[in-house]
Amino acid sequence: MPDSHLIPDAMRLAIEEARRTMNADQGGPFGAAVLDQNGSIIAVSSNTVLKDHDATAHAEMNAIRKAGAVLGTHDLSGCTLVTTAYPCPMCLGAIIWSNITKIIYGCRPDDADAIGFRDDMIYTYIRHPEDHASLLETKEQYRDECLSLFVEYDRKNKTIY
Amino acid sequence: MPDSHLIPDAMRLAIEEARRTMNADQGGPFGAAVLDQNGSIIAVSSNTVLKDHDATAHAEMNAIRKAGAVLGTHDLSGCTLVTTAYPCPMCLGAIIWSNITKIIYGCRPDDADAIGFRDDMIYTYIRHPEDHASLLETKEQYRDECLSLFVEYDRKNKTIY
Repeated sequence: MPDSHLIPDAMRLAIEEARRTMNADQGGPFGAAVLDQNGSIIAVSSNTVLKDHDATAHAEMNAIRKAGAVLGTHDLSGCTLVTTAYPCPMCLGAIIWSNITKIIYGCRPDDADAIGFRDDMIYTYIRHPEDHASLLETKEQYRDECLSLFVEYDRKNKTIY
Repeated sequence: MPDSHLIPDAMRLAIEEARRTMNADQGGPFGAAVLDQNGSIIAVSSNTVLKDHDATAHAEMNAIRKAGAVLGTHDLSGCTLVTTAYPCPMCLGAIIWSNITKIIYGCRPDDADAIGFRDDMIYTYIRHPEDHASLLETKEQYRDECLSLFVEYDRKNKTIY
């Protein structure tokens, strides 16, 4: 964990950026920062879903994308994510894919639920799809054609990520 | 569901794009396409995690971001996602946030697991965090400061997404 005196700065910057873009109607009240393994703040972002016309532009996603650009790699091993709210499943997935293993969060999923966001529902869907069966219609098709691609990949020299 | 004769085109284009970027070492063997509510293909993308230094650049994420840019909104209600493999939790979250409700997929999560990807593990973590407790260290801090932001948001005129 980076020096704890740096965490308040990162959280303060995340809150300030969230407030700025929220008040400009660019997205929800969410901010995030990434600290590198030395505890330096390398990315501060906020939710810009409305401004960017991009459902994936959550604060944590934007911060992970920015940190990857700064470090020149998708692999953020050793970094810490500071976020104003517990990550939704999309952002939690991104955190794991990026190899971040430490998260400091402010609000809880039910706090986000209380102001109208669907984080809790998406967790419920993933844990118990039968509770929201009408949410998604999924159909498996062309598996053989897609498996051919996997076989080609498996046979080549590749970078695992 | 769009006219089914369009699905093979979308899947074929997704496979071709995945093969192209996979062979250029830009990312894994994954492609995706978004069809609008009339069944027209409005976005085709593939996994570009390695090229973009971006852990979030999965095929479905890239396709959702592109479709949002094409339509000028984060809201992809009525659209269908075609993907060469069942979405990981990050991509599934993005699909739900974007209001897509129909998914056609090729390979299964355990097919991706068999060639070295962690989709299955991330699903397991979300469903049973205790099975991978060492994966993430999470700590709640500064909740009061972050809740203030939620209260400000809740009191303002806002667009729910």
